[in-house]
Amino acid sequence: MKLLTVGLVQHACSADTEANLAKSMAGIRQAAADGAKLVVLQELHRSLYFCQQERLQEFDLAETIPGPTTGLLGDLARELGVVIVASLFEKRAAGLYHNTAVVLDTDGGIAGTYRKMHIPDDPGYYEKFFFTPGDLGFQPIDTAVGRLGVLVCWDQWFPEAARLMAMASAEMLIYPTAIGWDPNDEPTEQARQRDAWVTIQRSHAVANGLPVISVNRVGYEADPCGQGAGAQFWGGSFVAGPQGEILWQSGQEETVATTTLDLSRSESVRRLWPYLRDRRIDHYGDLLKLYRD
Amino acid sequence: MKLLTVGLVQHACSADTEANLAKSMAGIRQAAADGAKLVVLQELHRSLYFCQQERLQEFDLAETIPGPTTGLLGDLARELGVVIVASLFEKRAAGLYHNTAVVLDTDGGIAGTYRKMHIPDDPGYYEKFFFTPGDLGFQPIDTAVGRLGVLVCWDQWFPEAARLMAMASAEMLIYPTAIGWDPNDEPTEQARQRDAWVTIQRSHAVANGLPVISVNRVGYEADPCGQGAGAQFWGGSFVAGPQGEILWQSGQEETVATTTLDLSRSESVRRLWPYLRDRRIDHYGDLLKLYRD
Repeated sequence: MKLLTVGLVQHACSADTEANLAKSMAGIRQAAADGAKLVVLQELHRSLYFCQQERLQEFDLAETIPGPTTGLLGDLARELGVVIVASLFEKRAAGLYHNTAVVLDTDGGIAGTYRKMHIPDDPGYYEKFFFTPGDLGFQPIDTAVGRLGVLVCWDQWFPEAARLMAMASAEMLIYPTAIGWDPNDEPTEQARQRDAWVTIQRSHAVANGLPVISVNRVGYEADPCGQGAGAQFWGGSFVAGPQGEILWQSGQEETVATTTLDLSRSESVRRLWPYLRDRRIDHYGDLLKLYRD
Repeated sequence: MKLLTVGLVQHACSADTEANLAKSMAGIRQAAADGAKLVVLQELHRSLYFCQQERLQEFDLAETIPGPTTGLLGDLARELGVVIVASLFEKRAAGLYHNTAVVLDTDGGIAGTYRKMHIPDDPGYYEKFFFTPGDLGFQPIDTAVGRLGVLVCWDQWFPEAARLMAMASAEMLIYPTAIGWDPNDEPTEQARQRDAWVTIQRSHAVANGLPVISVNRVGYEADPCGQGAGAQFWGGSFVAGPQGEILWQSGQEETVATTTLDLSRSESVRRLWPYLRDRRIDHYGDLLKLYRD
């Protein structure tokens, strides 16, 4: 057995970035007190989900990595002896910004960063305006608690991303996320969307024999321009085992939770379901195209 | 709307191959009478699942394509005006056999074949002994009812296969299947396996915005050598829509069912969830490796 207790911090955000970060950090403290050695935060936890409109002033939210937030979280990681997966609006240069996950190790240093590779853009989620698609590829990050396959939100819909992380020996897949409903959608459509979101992420566990940790925000956030209906973030953060089995799942309220994974189970599952043995790489060439036409 | 009524024929098999085929054909007639224009049979529907042991005499079950079964099913397809997806043990040459899906079109001819590309091999499922991995790649098959992304059983665990079919304009994914439980496994393990099987296939619908049709056999089949515990095939054939939503799912009994799909829904779903727009093919190169080491 190779046990790892994982903490998830799911919360609502306001326009007060200091208060949001304080909430995330209080959650990390609570999860660590409950035994977590790895704590995962939601996507862009320091702010409102600012991509509902394309407003230039939102770029003021961006910060460098390393920067003030990684400094605070690094100190906390060292103090508590935990690994933290955070999610920041990265200012790389004036005019060059990324949606970046940063991993703080138990020594307080930055173990690595992952710049979101797949960038969504649809009404209310105008991320292509804010974030340049990542240029670091799909590289897991080594930490004191294992090799982390950190991906971000929209990446969760792409089996290619999960596979590439698994093939690089990631021991788990981690998705900080900000996803919600359009309040004007029918409840049946809302249910299909949330169910699809759980299903696709569980499927990465199944296809790769890896645990999956997904952390989403909660709360209603209004359209800052008052044009759209805003977003009702659906929470539902969860941990799945390497057969895709749900080990823990939250509701729609603010939550700090811990779950214990047995990382050694991945190898037993892969012996039973040896997909890595049987991939037909001699016929996968067209995966490098956009379309086979 | 582009409506298509799909029929699924899920049944048990015995050592009497004539009786099995008669059962499949009766199911096709019933589905057609209920309005189906496309009828999908389970994997290797003409026989017991003969891969529980590596016995040489099982190769006697193989037949050529075209051959007697494609003749009978082609005649039936023409008579009923339906497209049939069948699954045969193909004898290509002495010593060269495949697990092949064959599609009979409404004119009675063979619209195309798909030779199972990913071949499993685990205790009780010794397919690598019987089937050479397919050499036709992942090519959808054009028929009177649309372009079919036909895959077979073990393929269902590989997101790459579904993606390649979607990228080649398949309008739906179809999986004839033979999967069951080891009766000695704990009910919790059995539940995880069946749930993972549904989840991974629904995820292909989600990732690709395509409906999925999966047809499995039912019934208990003993180990012909009396060594193992045999296999309890779990049925559970289902149809999912392009958001992965279950439209219909069977239990563990013999069933002939029809469900109507609206194929035009795929495009609306893909406009909402435009994964094809955002694939990072500039960073997918390592998918053509077995492992990134």
